[in-house]
Amino acid sequence: MSDPLLLPEIRLMLAEGDEAGLADLVTAMHPASTANFIEELSDEELWQLLQYAPIERQAAIFSFLPLRKQVDLVSGMGRERMSKLLEEMSPDDRVDLLQHLDEEVVESLLPLVAKADREDIRRLLSYPEDSAASVMTTDYASLPSDITVDEAINIVRRQAPDRETIYYIYVVDEYRHLIGIVSLRDLVLAKGSTRIADIMQRDVVAVRAELDQEEVARQMARYDFIAIPVVDHQHRLIGIITFDDLADIVEDEATEDFHLTAAVSPLAHGYHESRVWTLFRRRAGWLLILVFVNLVSSGVIAAYQETLEAVIALAFFLPLLIDSGGNTGSQAATLIIRALATEEIRLSEWLSTVLKELGVGLALGFAMAIASFFLGVFRGGLEVGLIVGISMLGIVMVTNLIGVLLPFALTRLRIDPAVASSPLITTIADATGLLLYFNVAAAVMSQGWLSSAASG
Amino acid sequence: MSDPLLLPEIRLMLAEGDEAGLADLVTAMHPASTANFIEELSDEELWQLLQYAPIERQAAIFSFLPLRKQVDLVSGMGRERMSKLLEEMSPDDRVDLLQHLDEEVVESLLPLVAKADREDIRRLLSYPEDSAASVMTTDYASLPSDITVDEAINIVRRQAPDRETIYYIYVVDEYRHLIGIVSLRDLVLAKGSTRIADIMQRDVVAVRAELDQEEVARQMARYDFIAIPVVDHQHRLIGIITFDDLADIVEDEATEDFHLTAAVSPLAHGYHESRVWTLFRRRAGWLLILVFVNLVSSGVIAAYQETLEAVIALAFFLPLLIDSGGNTGSQAATLIIRALATEEIRLSEWLSTVLKELGVGLALGFAMAIASFFLGVFRGGLEVGLIVGISMLGIVMVTNLIGVLLPFALTRLRIDPAVASSPLITTIADATGLLLYFNVAAAVMSQGWLSSAASG
Repeated sequence: MSDPLLLPEIRLMLAEGDEAGLADLVTAMHPASTANFIEELSDEELWQLLQYAPIERQAAIFSFLPLRKQVDLVSGMGRERMSKLLEEMSPDDRVDLLQHLDEEVVESLLPLVAKADREDIRRLLSYPEDSAASVMTTDYASLPSDITVDEAINIVRRQAPDRETIYYIYVVDEYRHLIGIVSLRDLVLAKGSTRIADIMQRDVVAVRAELDQEEVARQMARYDFIAIPVVDHQHRLIGIITFDDLADIVEDEATEDFHLTAAVSPLAHGYHESRVWTLFRRRAGWLLILVFVNLVSSGVIAAYQETLEAVIALAFFLPLLIDSGGNTGSQAATLIIRALATEEIRLSEWLSTVLKELGVGLALGFAMAIASFFLGVFRGGLEVGLIVGISMLGIVMVTNLIGVLLPFALTRLRIDPAVASSPLITTIADATGLLLYFNVAAAVMSQGWLSSAASG
Repeated sequence: MSDPLLLPEIRLMLAEGDEAGLADLVTAMHPASTANFIEELSDEELWQLLQYAPIERQAAIFSFLPLRKQVDLVSGMGRERMSKLLEEMSPDDRVDLLQHLDEEVVESLLPLVAKADREDIRRLLSYPEDSAASVMTTDYASLPSDITVDEAINIVRRQAPDRETIYYIYVVDEYRHLIGIVSLRDLVLAKGSTRIADIMQRDVVAVRAELDQEEVARQMARYDFIAIPVVDHQHRLIGIITFDDLADIVEDEATEDFHLTAAVSPLAHGYHESRVWTLFRRRAGWLLILVFVNLVSSGVIAAYQETLEAVIALAFFLPLLIDSGGNTGSQAATLIIRALATEEIRLSEWLSTVLKELGVGLALGFAMAIASFFLGVFRGGLEVGLIVGISMLGIVMVTNLIGVLLPFALTRLRIDPAVASSPLITTIADATGLLLYFNVAAAVMSQGWLSSAASG
């Protein structure tokens, strides 16, 4: 979306000090559009440009910039300018930014911020990452229950300019216990003299501060809420999570699962912010473990060394059989992992799923067996074709079953099923596949059919 | 969440005809909670129970049931009961359900529905799947621009009970061209005598009906909108997409990418609704293609048959080298595919990413080389260890590079980078790895070091 033609024009306006044009640029569009247009400017140009907008709009534009650009802007000489912006940013965006800064930068910023905001920041920063509290905002509208709708609308009018969302208004008692909820819609549709206690909904769905964000996203998606309140262990209201965070959470969780299924340990921050050394550590662990698991496979081949020496053409098909087993297993595992993650399949449905997949595996096995029979005949003669075809049928069926069962088993053991990564499945499938292959070969060869096949 | 203890109790209440208790059950909780509690009832019990709620609430509870339960409920004798519910469901939920029914069931339902709803359904069903229009709802509030805030609030009060979301109200001219937008919040905060034209925002972000839902989700996420309007080619307002669809879209798109990276062609409906035959077809295509691509690998081994016969121990490490190459490539590809999908990396950043990954690949290559050198020595002697270690270094670096470059190349060619699936990468990595392996082996062996190594 970023328009490369606009940048030289902005630079010209900055050089010429075209105040009217620049002010128009930073105020006319939605802050997200502005951020999108100007994100390729240098840090210095960006700070210069932002000055032409009122401080709240500066904060809004800043919040829509990519996180890594925000981090760049804060470092160095941006620090002083930042303190003002920090006060204007919404609490959750602010904490999101601070969590990505070096600790010393955060510590140098905090003294420049107003005391109330400072305490708010410290409190939000202290919640564990991925908890409900870490993504919540403290910007919400609240009311007592013993006032009328008209009084309520007046209070909301006063609170609103500071509140991130006023579409739900939370009703609290004098100890801030959450006792009800009123939507702005209900407030508008109700008669002015009605008491809040009479129109508020008392059965409020709320989440605890320490709940995992994945579960929060599930609750929000289930109820189609614009916002969900967050309470502490005494059911006191401490914040809300708004709909715009929901999509972010869903995306984050999907990314984590993606990485796990490729045997990459989840990255704490994004790819861009991860250094070479971090990326190495997140990837090397699994790769090295799998090297040692592979000892089993090489052991199997070593055990059947004589079979292999007798018919060297058998070696030609090692990659084919190994890969096909791994591919089939990965497909099955991925389908199940994803269906479990989106709650489309429940753990209790494991048996019906396995039965269904037996059918799929059988069909896939036959299709693959026929294809590889012809490849085998082509490269190694009729008997090799037979060995490869029969082995393929068995390998596809077995690896498909492993791919289905492993995610269920891991879920049962309360381990994230995404750990059943394609590389792990592949490595397990290998050893199984090789055993099958050499046993089929030995069986077929003992029939004495293989006289003509050693050529290749 | 479903409480297994509650079911027998509900069944008892149904048997005893406990009207007060049943009415309470279906009206006291949020419809999503009710749906969650009762989804394990039989179809007949569920229909019976629903009768105790007013028709709008029946529709709400029905919409929160899992889609496959909805489909079950409609089939057979549920058809007549369904027509009334269909009229009460929100247009997008309704179309979602109808898209999952057999065509004949839909055709038998439509005559039972009121004419206006019937036309609405036919129109929504005619948009291509995954388009903006296919997920939009036609339930929105709209206003002319030449009225006052007080008049507007009155109109909204009248429209509201039927409208899925009134948090944004769309301002249209006499031809329904979208000319502005007012949030309910603005309406509440403004003076009653102000004209709508004076407070509406004229710079409205809208999406075209045929835009892909993935792009819609990006726009909504970028701007943090609760709803986004959908317009036709003449900029006439035809519907809106609400925030609760956003998370669904993000999840759908992630599922599609998950399946693609495991070489499964995207499923039109969920796993549960896909029959064995559908699953087979979605998986067999890639598997069979990869079987034939594997011809290259078996060709490479066949070409180096003599090297292999001379030192059979080389065969022991075929799975190790092949798997490690595939694993490394999958890791790299998955990281890049996901970063591209979440717009964390742009296409233009390919060069800096490749340079970074050269570093990661080098570090991984050395770690893997050292581990496999020892494995090689253990199973085949010093020289085999040397061959395996050197090959591993090369294979890891090369496959890592392939994994990084392929998603960028596919994106450049306007192909979904998720097509660079782990199985595809694995198969490409195989042939490359084998060539490297046998060439390293030939080079080391020509040094005449291998006198002691043929044992295993």
